[in-house]
Amino acid sequence: MPVTVVLQKTNGVELQVDPDEDEWVKIGKGVIIFVAFLKDTTADQLPAIVKKLLHLKYCERASILEQRRDVLLVPQATLGGKIKGKQLQYHGNVSKDEGRDLFMALIAEFQKQLEEAGVGDSITFKHGTYGNIQRMRNMSNDGPFTHTFTFPS
Amino acid sequence: MPVTVVLQKTNGVELQVDPDEDEWVKIGKGVIIFVAFLKDTTADQLPAIVKKLLHLKYCERASILEQRRDVLLVPQATLGGKIKGKQLQYHGNVSKDEGRDLFMALIAEFQKQLEEAGVGDSITFKHGTYGNIQRMRNMSNDGPFTHTFTFPS
Repeated sequence: MPVTVVLQKTNGVELQVDPDEDEWVKIGKGVIIFVAFLKDTTADQLPAIVKKLLHLKYCERASILEQRRDVLLVPQATLGGKIKGKQLQYHGNVSKDEGRDLFMALIAEFQKQLEEAGVGDSITFKHGTYGNIQRMRNMSNDGPFTHTFTFPS
Repeated sequence: MPVTVVLQKTNGVELQVDPDEDEWVKIGKGVIIFVAFLKDTTADQLPAIVKKLLHLKYCERASILEQRRDVLLVPQATLGGKIKGKQLQYHGNVSKDEGRDLFMALIAEFQKQLEEAGVGDSITFKHGTYGNIQRMRNMSNDGPFTHTFTFPS
């Protein structure tokens, strides 16, 4: 189960995507998707994962596509951490270069599927940058509604 | 593995703990701990989980206790969701009554261990309320640093 995801609903959030510049991306009402790639993740697994995330009926109601919710995709290698005693180990994670490539492929796949679904204009899709510190601010929600999944599931 | 946890570092966050009143709790720099109880969770498992969470060296540096970080504990039954087709199912979760009892026991255990560690005055410990909508606002961090664990691990 190579891809670990945490989802959180939000009413709005800002993410700093370049630590050297005061450059922030912003989404409105939608979902933050944190993602980590573990070893054995391959790019050909990504289309099915994106499809699942866009069509999943969160809280048994409606999907991102049906609700026209914004999406903020954030690389989050810490999700691959396993507890060993009092330490966290990340031996299961892909290398930084592999992770960067997979994250770029995941962004492209989200953009492709949002276009194909005809919601490219009505859904704001933003993403973080791999390997950078990414500050978040002004995050709010109507209840955190946090989910965690591993894929393929 | 009955207890599912998601942790997020924060520089500060506010949580509405009573949907009928405009009552919010607030922590500063610290950790938000979202927790869901799956079936077969028993109260006698909780002390070891709290100990692990308080002593774990996040990002291989230092623990909540060592860093004197605030803690916001949030019940989050959605973490128990499993994907079945396009739906989320929660068959693995404890009942609402059991969940409420376990959450109260978890609060008491955090308070006890923080007292025993002699940090009751220097660490702000706040918690949400079970079964309520809990709005969050003004959440910020220096990078989300999201972790997910299952216990016993």
